[in-house]
Formats: sequence, C-alpha cells, structure tokens
Amino acid sequence: MQIGMIGLGRMGASMVRRLMKAGHECVVHDINPASIADLARDGAVGAASIEDLVGKLQKPRVVWLMLPAAITRKVAGAVADFMEAGDSIVDGGNSNYRDAVDQAALFSKKGLNYLDVGTSGGVWGLDRGYCLMIGGPDEAVKRLDPIFASLAPGADAGNAPDGAAGTAPYGYLHCGPSGAGHFVKMVHNGIEYGIMAAYAEGMNILKAANAGAQSRDADAETTPLDEPHYYRFDIDLAEVAEVWRHGSVIGSWLLDLTAGALKADPELLKFSGRVSDSGEGRWTLKAAIDTGVPAPVLSTALFDRFSSRGEAEYADKLLSAMRFAFGGHVEKPKSPTAGENE
Amino acid sequence: MQIGMIGLGRMGASMVRRLMKAGHECVVHDINPASIADLARDGAVGAASIEDLVGKLQKPRVVWLMLPAAITRKVAGAVADFMEAGDSIVDGGNSNYRDAVDQAALFSKKGLNYLDVGTSGGVWGLDRGYCLMIGGPDEAVKRLDPIFASLAPGADAGNAPDGAAGTAPYGYLHCGPSGAGHFVKMVHNGIEYGIMAAYAEGMNILKAANAGAQSRDADAETTPLDEPHYYRFDIDLAEVAEVWRHGSVIGSWLLDLTAGALKADPELLKFSGRVSDSGEGRWTLKAAIDTGVPAPVLSTALFDRFSSRGEAEYADKLLSAMRFAFGGHVEKPKSPTAGENE
Amino acid sequence: MQIGMIGLGRMGASMVRRLMKAGHECVVHDINPASIADLARDGAVGAASIEDLVGKLQKPRVVWLMLPAAITRKVAGAVADFMEAGDSIVDGGNSNYRDAVDQAALFSKKGLNYLDVGTSGGVWGLDRGYCLMIGGPDEAVKRLDPIFASLAPGADAGNAPDGAAGTAPYGYLHCGPSGAGHFVKMVHNGIEYGIMAAYAEGMNILKAANAGAQSRDADAETTPLDEPHYYRFDIDLAEVAEVWRHGSVIGSWLLDLTAGALKADPELLKFSGRVSDSGEGRWTLKAAIDTGVPAPVLSTALFDRFSSRGEAEYADKLLSAMRFAFGGHVEKPKSPTAGENE
Amino acid sequence: MQIGMIGLGRMGASMVRRLMKAGHECVVHDINPASIADLARDGAVGAASIEDLVGKLQKPRVVWLMLPAAITRKVAGAVADFMEAGDSIVDGGNSNYRDAVDQAALFSKKGLNYLDVGTSGGVWGLDRGYCLMIGGPDEAVKRLDPIFASLAPGADAGNAPDGAAGTAPYGYLHCGPSGAGHFVKMVHNGIEYGIMAAYAEGMNILKAANAGAQSRDADAETTPLDEPHYYRFDIDLAEVAEVWRHGSVIGSWLLDLTAGALKADPELLKFSGRVSDSGEGRWTLKAAIDTGVPAPVLSTALFDRFSSRGEAEYADKLLSAMRFAFGGHVEKPKSPTAGENE
Repeated sequence: MQIGMIGLGRMGASMVRRLMKAGHECVVHDINPASIADLARDGAVGAASIEDLVGKLQKPRVVWLMLPAAITRKVAGAVADFMEAGDSIVDGGNSNYRDAVDQAALFSKKGLNYLDVGTSGGVWGLDRGYCLMIGGPDEAVKRLDPIFASLAPGADAGNAPDGAAGTAPYGYLHCGPSGAGHFVKMVHNGIEYGIMAAYAEGMNILKAANAGAQSRDADAETTPLDEPHYYRFDIDLAEVAEVWRHGSVIGSWLLDLTAGALKADPELLKFSGRVSDSGEGRWTLKAAIDTGVPAPVLSTALFDRFSSRGEAEYADKLLSAMRFAFGGHVEKPKSPTAGENE
Repeated sequence: MQIGMIGLGRMGASMVRRLMKAGHECVVHDINPASIADLARDGAVGAASIEDLVGKLQKPRVVWLMLPAAITRKVAGAVADFMEAGDSIVDGGNSNYRDAVDQAALFSKKGLNYLDVGTSGGVWGLDRGYCLMIGGPDEAVKRLDPIFASLAPGADAGNAPDGAAGTAPYGYLHCGPSGAGHFVKMVHNGIEYGIMAAYAEGMNILKAANAGAQSRDADAETTPLDEPHYYRFDIDLAEVAEVWRHGSVIGSWLLDLTAGALKADPELLKFSGRVSDSGEGRWTLKAAIDTGVPAPVLSTALFDRFSSRGEAEYADKLLSAMRFAFGGHVEKPKSPTAGENE
Repeated sequence: MQIGMIGLGRMGASMVRRLMKAGHECVVHDINPASIADLARDGAVGAASIEDLVGKLQKPRVVWLMLPAAITRKVAGAVADFMEAGDSIVDGGNSNYRDAVDQAALFSKKGLNYLDVGTSGGVWGLDRGYCLMIGGPDEAVKRLDPIFASLAPGADAGNAPDGAAGTAPYGYLHCGPSGAGHFVKMVHNGIEYGIMAAYAEGMNILKAANAGAQSRDADAETTPLDEPHYYRFDIDLAEVAEVWRHGSVIGSWLLDLTAGALKADPELLKFSGRVSDSGEGRWTLKAAIDTGVPAPVLSTALFDRFSSRGEAEYADKLLSAMRFAFGGHVEKPKSPTAGENE
Repeated sequence: MQIGMIGLGRMGASMVRRLMKAGHECVVHDINPASIADLARDGAVGAASIEDLVGKLQKPRVVWLMLPAAITRKVAGAVADFMEAGDSIVDGGNSNYRDAVDQAALFSKKGLNYLDVGTSGGVWGLDRGYCLMIGGPDEAVKRLDPIFASLAPGADAGNAPDGAAGTAPYGYLHCGPSGAGHFVKMVHNGIEYGIMAAYAEGMNILKAANAGAQSRDADAETTPLDEPHYYRFDIDLAEVAEVWRHGSVIGSWLLDLTAGALKADPELLKFSGRVSDSGEGRWTLKAAIDTGVPAPVLSTALFDRFSSRGEAEYADKLLSAMRFAFGGHVEKPKSPTAGENE
C-alpha cells in the first residue's frame, strides 16, 4: 500500500527501505533534501514539503512521522492542516505516550486518526525487522496491517508461531487505544535500562576478580582486601559473554551484542562511559510513581546513567564535606579508605 | 569416555542421560536407590556406594558431583579418600567458588584435580544443552573436553560459530584455575536476578496502566491519582511479552519463558510471590563489596527477593511507628495515603 | 496581627492555638462546626462560611489554608472570589509546589498574593514550633513576618543563632517566589523518607543479629547460614536507639522518636507495616527525574513503602513463575532456599 | 581509675585527654614518640614500648587499643603476651566485629577479657563525649564503668535521663558478649551512610531547582526539559539547611554539620567528591545478606560511594558500547540525550 514518511534519519530511512522492499509505495520528506534524494534514487517518491507530501497521497492518507520527540507535535499539527477526515497520522518516534493521548483527542475532532507506534530494533531493524507496539483506533490500525506486517520481523524470524492467534508472534501488536503503543514502548525501554545495567554491573564484578593479585598501598587508613587469595582470577570477559550466549539462563539479544562489542574492544577504549538516556526510562518511572508500583531496579538503573554523566558530583562533595565536618577526614585521591571512628 | 556421577536429582539425572545419549559411559550413585535404578534401566552402571562407584572407574578417574551446596564438601572428601593421584573431582553444583579454591588447595596435596563447573540451563538442559563455566587445572580440564562438549549445546544450537576460536561458541569455557568456574557462574546468577527483576517491575507497571479507570475512595487523606485519563489502558501482558520476543532490544530466553508463563496463567494464580534466592546472588554482592565495585541494581534485585518473603516487615513497622510518633498518622488498611505535614 | 484560618484539623487547630498564644487574632472556619466551636471557646473568632470569614478580616486580608491537597485548589478559588487586590492567600498544606506556581500566576491577575508555606513539625509543632519553608512575593511575605515568627520555634529553641543574619535560625525562611516554599518542603519530605528507611533497615539488621542462634531446617535445598557463631547476639533495640541519641553521629529528632517508640513497644505490635506515603516523596523523585539528578536512595525508600503495601506482589509472582519455568523451582512456604542450577 | 592506651592518633589522644580531665590515670604508648611526649606533657604516663606500658599498669590491667583495623589484631596479640589472667584488652577502633568474637575466644583461654567498644563522635568527642557501644564479659564491662562514664557524654548533655534505668541515656551501653559492641557500631555506620546520602541527594535536587532557567542546546537528540517554568528557583542551600535545623522532622546532628559546612563553602569547592568508606558500611551489608534482611537503601548509599571514586567506569563504558551496538548511538560529551528508538 501507499504511505508517507516524514523524517528520514537513521530510523526513518531504514524503515522506508524495508517497506519498499516489501512492495509498498513510499512518499518521503525531510528537512534535509539530500536525504530525500537518497531514497528517491532507490524508488521512493520525494516530496519537497509537507503540503507536497500530503498532496501526493491517496485517501484515506497515512503519514508516518519518524522524528525527534521535541518536534513531533509541531510537525503533526502541520500535517493535520492538510488532511481530511479518515486520514491517519502515525507517530513512530520516541514521544511521550501522553502526547498520543492528547493528540488523538485533538485530531479526532477533525475526524483524523492518531496512531502511536513504539518501534524497537535500532539499526538492526532494516534486516531483522522492527518490533512494533501500536496504539490507536481499531479500524485505522487494521487498515495499516500490511505496513506493520512488512516492518515487523514476521514469521520468518526463526521463532515461528505454532498455531498462535494474533499478530504478536509476527512482531507487532495492537496494544490498545491511542497512547497504548508508546506506553508499552516506554516500559520496554525502562526494562531495557534495567537489563543493560544488570549485565554491566556483573561484567564489572568479573573485571575486578583479580583485585587480590594487585598490590595495594599498605596505608594504615586503607581497609585491606579481606582474603585476597579469593580474588586472583583473570577473567576473559569477551569469552564469558560468548559462552553465556549458548544455553545459559541469561542469553539475550543484548548479550549477543555485548559479546560482539567485547570481542572487538575488550577494554572498551572507544567509550568514555557518559551514558545518555532517552525520555522513556524517565517516563516509565513517573508512571510507576503515579500508580504506586515499586520499581527500584529500573530507577536505580536510570539514576546510574545520570551519575555516569557527573550529575552526582555535588551530592558526593557534600558527603565529603560532612565526613570532614564530623571526623576531620580529608578526601583521599585514590582507592577506598578506612574512616576513623565515624 | 567414562565418568562417575554422584547426585541424581533433577539436574544430575538429566546430565547423565545427555551424556549417555552422546555415547559416554556413566557410573552413577545417589542416596536414593530408586534414582540409581531409574538410570541403570536406561544404560547407566549403578553403584551402591561411593567406594563402589570409584572402584568401577578406570584411571585416571573422574567423579562429577551434582549435589546441594550444603553437602558437597563432605561428599567430595569421601570420594577423595578412595582416589589416587591423577584422578579428578568435579563439583557441578551451586557451591561457593571459595570452596573450590580451598578444596583444590587441599586435594592437590594428594595429587587430585578439583574442577568447579558452573552449570546453567535448568530443566531445559537435557534437550538444549548446558552452558558450562569451568575452573581447574589446564590438563585436567583438557582431558574432560569430550564430556563438556557433550553436555554443552554445541554448534548445532542455531548460533553456529563462524570461524570462532575456542570453545565458548559451543557453550563451554575454561574460565581459569579452580574457583574461576563457580565465580563466573556466581556472577551469572547475580545478573540473572537483575534481569528478572527488570522484567518483573516493568510488567507490574504495565499491569497498573489502568489505574485511572478504577474508582478510588474520595478520602480526604488520599493523594488522588494525578491525571487519571493517562492511565486507562488494559494491557494484555501475555501478548506484550510475546511481541517483545520478535525484533525488540529486550528479547531473551527469560522473556521467552515469561511469555509462555503469562500465556498459560496471566494472573499467575499458581504463585504466591515468595521468591527464593540461592547463594550465588548473595555471594555476587559480597564479591562486589570486597572489591569495591558498585552493584546497586543487582543488590536491589536481591533485596527485593528478601522483601518478597516478608523480611522487611519489622523495618516497615518501624516506619509506621515513626510516622505515628511525629505526625499521629495511623496506618491505613489500604491504598496510598496523604501524610499531613510530615 | 489578624489572620483567617480555613481547615481546623490536627494541624490547623494547633497552629491557631499557637498563634493565639502569641497574641494574634484568628478568624477560623471548617466544614465541621464542632471544630470551629472548639477554637471559638478558646478565643478564636468563628466564621460560618468562607464569605463570613473573609468578611470578618481587615484589609489587606490574609487567609491561611490548612487543607488536604485534594481540595486546596477549590477552596482557594472560593476564597479568592471574596478577596480584593492586596489580599493574600497562604497554602500551608502538602500541595504540589506546581499548584503554587499556577495559582500565583492566576491570582496575580486579580492583584492577590499567593504564598506557599511548607510546614514541618507534625503533632509536636504546637509546643515545639513549626519549621516553615515559605514561597511568595517579597512584600507579602514580609508583611506576614509576625505570623511566621510566632509559628516557628524561634530563638528559644536551644539552638540560639549566634549573630546570624536572616530568619533561618528562628525556624522560618523565605525560599523564593511562589512555589519555592513547597518545593523545599517537598525535598524535605523526600529526605525524610530516606532517613527513616536508613534507621529502619539498620534496626532490622540488628534484630536479625541472633539468626545464628535459631535452629533452621536441615533441608537440602536451603542455603545454610555461613558461620552461625557470628550471629548470636540478642540486641536490645530500644536501648541501642537510646544510646545513639547521646554523642553519636546519627543522633536526630527522628531517632529521639524512634527510641521512644521502641521503649513503649519493642516488638511494634501496634503496627502492621503498611507504610503510607504522601505526595511529596513522589514529587521529589519526579523533580529529580526531570532535572537529571540521581536520587537512588530516595527512590528506593519510596518504593519500599509501595512494597510494604503489597504493590510488588505481581512482580514477585512473575519472578516465581520464571523460576518455575527455567528450573522447575516450586515456591517454598518459608525461609530462603537454594535454587538448583539457575 | 588507671588505664593504658595504645594508639595516640586523632581519636586516641582526644580520649586520653577526656579521661585525664575526669581524673583517670593514663599510661600511653604510640609508635610515634612525639605523640607520647605530647600527652606526657599534659599529665599522662608515657611508655616506650608495649612491654613498658603493661608493666606500668596495676592488676587487673586494662589496655585500650585505638588503632587502624589493619594492625589491631597484631598489637592485641603483643599486648596479650605480657598480660595475665583477669586482665582486659579493649579494642576501641573500627575493627570487624568478627575479630572480637575470634579474639575473645582466643584470649579467654589465657583468662584474658576482650572488650570491643564501638566509638562514635569523631573529632567532636573530646568536648561532646563519645557514644560507646560495648561488647564483652559482664564483669569486665562492669569494672570499666568509670572509664565508659567519663568518655561518654553523660547526663549533662542536655538530654538528661528522666528516671531512666541503665546507662544508655548517659551515652554508653553494654550491648552483649564480645563482638556485640562492634556489631552495633557497624550497623550505626551503615545507617550513617544512608542518612548522609539522603541529605546529599536532596540537596542536589534543590541545587537543580533552577534547571529551567538555564539555556539548553536545541539539539534534536536532546530530551527537552518538560515545563521549564516549574524549575526556576534559586534556592540558598545553606539557608535551607539552617532552617531545617529548627523544628523540622529531619533535624539531626549531621544536618547541624551540613548547615555549617554549606555556610562556610556553599559551592563545596574544597572537595572533589571522591567519598571514602570505612569497613563498617561494607560489613553491615554482608550481615544483611547473611541474615536475609533487605537493606536496599543502605546498599545503594554504599555503592554510590564506590561510584563516586570512579568504580562504575567500566560498567558505564559497557552501557555505551551496548547503546552503540544496537542503536548506533555515539556518546555525547554533555547533557542527557534522547536515544533513537532503542
């Protein structure tokens, strides 16, 4: 079928390619003309403006937005201005699910459908297919089924559904009314942060398994490592990540990627350790707080990312200031120290 | 090759079957004669006692122990009494890696090899193969390669190694000297707890996504749910778990199992929520503490299990006692409440 | 000076009494006529309605609201309807600071001042004085100084300011424009939850110090307590709380209360351990999330309260379901258990 | 009465001075002769060696050790060599309580008493008195009562006991047999870490209260701050800490110190934020783990200290590596960023 795509960045462009490969017709637009030209060369219909794009679509029109959350609302409004009752706007980006609730209410007055599609799969989605979590009105979602089916991994992903009903085994799911798709995607990312932190902490412990083999200052203030002979292992982290992929309880796609990353760069020298977070992890916790659901693992994982970016610095300085105030403890430049009678 | 197996519970018996299927000869013993008889019927050589078992093995002998951690040390000693220099004892259970360090030092005086093999895969290992994390002396580990190769998933697991060196892609890895295998397995389980908690917390948030649709007491002391219209989703958790398996970033074997469990019993009525923990999660944190490695996600996951068993009760009562002392707050039987000017 | 007070619950009534003791004239209203009569007997001027109350005040009027957060906004609107430019409304309750930002903007159009006063001190404030965190326009805050000075502990609190400038040493502080008072109070409560949890967890550990003296089932699945001879202390928690009050680093008012509570009821039999939370702890975390500030201790403390009310139950059941799925582990009714090869 | 003191560092020297002020006779030794001379000038009896010190004491002798944990065991052994049945050794340092259990068992064979005295109060103890948590045999503890009473704050601390039985209101407590004193002190420090973290996190949130007033890059990848108009407060942290000291629920001695520190150096420029930890916080968590008691707040507080010293770096790099692997996300040098379709 035919679809319009606005936003031809890493994600948007790949999705267009995957759709075209499946035989769909894509009308595409981006603020960067080169991105349009790239896809036009491969068979997409380029559109010079939002108006142009909407004009090139047959009714009922479908425009998919693959944009940064910060500008999605504005672009959706601009698209809606050219649309008519029965048309659909799809937000495939990382927007707050609340936007979809609001936007759907707003646009429904004009007879437009607003769909929110959480999209997971990253740069691998082009080949592997995208996992789609969909919110929106039943009929509009149903009409877009061929698009979803083509973007999703489908039954050929090795995990063939055995007589399963529904579309979930194919990698896409209508989760509920507008907002439900991004809500599920939001929680997905919250979980993702927790899982990533679990691997990262574990690997960090394995890395320290040879702490007992390292010499330490015989400083009277330093707590000595108890029983150093229990910490004399030089663990090959890349090999461990690899072996866990085969038959262990913690096998996962993230572990597959981790094993690859560690094989290529065991010391991770390419990275400084400032870990970004997108909005979803934050919104997940706000939802947990609103609804009174305990989420200490997910929150700890998120806050660790904040700390990785230096955001705990003032708090840490205050701890040092307190220690100095009650115990006269002066900060040490390195390694754990023994406080004196705190 | 030939191997002796002591401990024919769920894990031990399955491993014997998998080894026999691969053509190995298994001499087996258990305190429960019926367990011996069961396997003998299927081709194993039964042994009536530890002495009998050791006597039936050719030199250099290999005895694999698949026992509860609490009795492994004692049985290992009994086995060692009948062994000679060059023989090997393998601890495949969930022992503390420190035991392996100690036992290896002890038995090496007699010329015995002590191998510790962390074994992951649970009840699925019989068919799927076990992920093996191995510690011990080089030569002894090498000699047991056919056993490890048969227990592990091997190259047929769908994740075929592409020209990879080493054994990790086959699902087993010599991690280092005695103790290294159980150390890696220990951290494996620590990670497992973190991952499981991430999924569980996320699913719990999804379950609460309809909090805004439920009526609440208009009690003056109760904090009302802000903006209830953002929490009116009835999410089908089983379907969500299923769709995440296909193309999403958080696909994993644990998710596969979760999807199956939710499909069979969406309300999880079979379970009360008292979550056990084995020693590994605890030891992982002790290792983190000893070596000064931050592991807040893993520790939170472990402590949540303690709390699930009611172990926070006294602490919670104390919180209520403090609230009563400063604010006159009386505990409410249900739902979150608004404190007054704490 | 003269002030109107609406909301004569535990907090409001005590504040009126403290103000009258300091010589201020209080016009009081509540939906419960008995509460009005009680205070009228002690010298307050009763008002039968909001209109009556406003009518009895001299210009520029000051009306202080001491109401549940859920109805403050509505009552403030009703009060404002009878007011004129130059008058002031004070919200002394536990409202979200965002309300004050919004309300101040709204009422300023009519020339009204909106002050938000975070009030700490609980049931002890009547005698001990209230700690006041104030937000609002400079002039209005200044005009109310006699009220704040009378409600606050003042210089006689034993912590006499030594030549200090400002009002903070007297127990009240103008923190900034409208919203700043409740913002500071919000974080105050967030901190409070963290401190309370620290004491509660520590006391719970002390309570378990005799774990090694208790007999445990010799169940093969149960991880035995390592080295039970290190856990044979019967600690008197009430005595420990008392001794810490004198000269230790962790002395505090909350500890004073804890010591009293433990002395009166060491086993805390009066409490079930369902711990409520007011909105402030939740809003504190939302502010941390919005601004990218790590707050893992405060969030963990909040989430523990959610868990104390059973809100982790579904998550815990899911953990049990996963354990059953991969390891065939059946939940045990009691005590930690050893998993088998997870 | 008479007492020997070995270890004349910050703590030991102050304790000797406080004891002498109360009329006790102190025989003192240190590896640094200048420390001995300092105290001898003020009335102490100097001793050139351990043997000399023991020789100068009347039977039954009491030797108090105020030494780094790393050397206490060795010095205790040296002291014991010169002692006789009925003599007592007191470990007043920050040793693991397990040492006291072990040492008491060892020395009791020779008829010696081993007391462990957890000592809190830091550099303020000289004037303010020390809070003492005491473990050891009843009779030996009783005999030392005059020493404990002099070191502790006593009834003059403003918190006079009102007809209280026991010594706790005077600031010292016999907690149980050998080990109990250091056990209680251990948990004390665990709690201390949690309380300190609660204040530090809260202050950090207050510091960020003006995040909405700061300009941010309009980068398409950056999650914008929602509703920046709610984050435009410039909070004076020193003033807030001061006001909280007067009448609020979170008043404490640590807050008193915090207020002083913030007044002197609001930006905490003297500190870098590398926060040390002594052994007690670590041992507290090991005890919680051993006994199955949830302590997520205390553990999070400890792990934050580890992170403040850069120990999360490898874990953070691994998170960045995973993000790069699945999403092509390149680390940003500054500020939170929006991930794209994780």
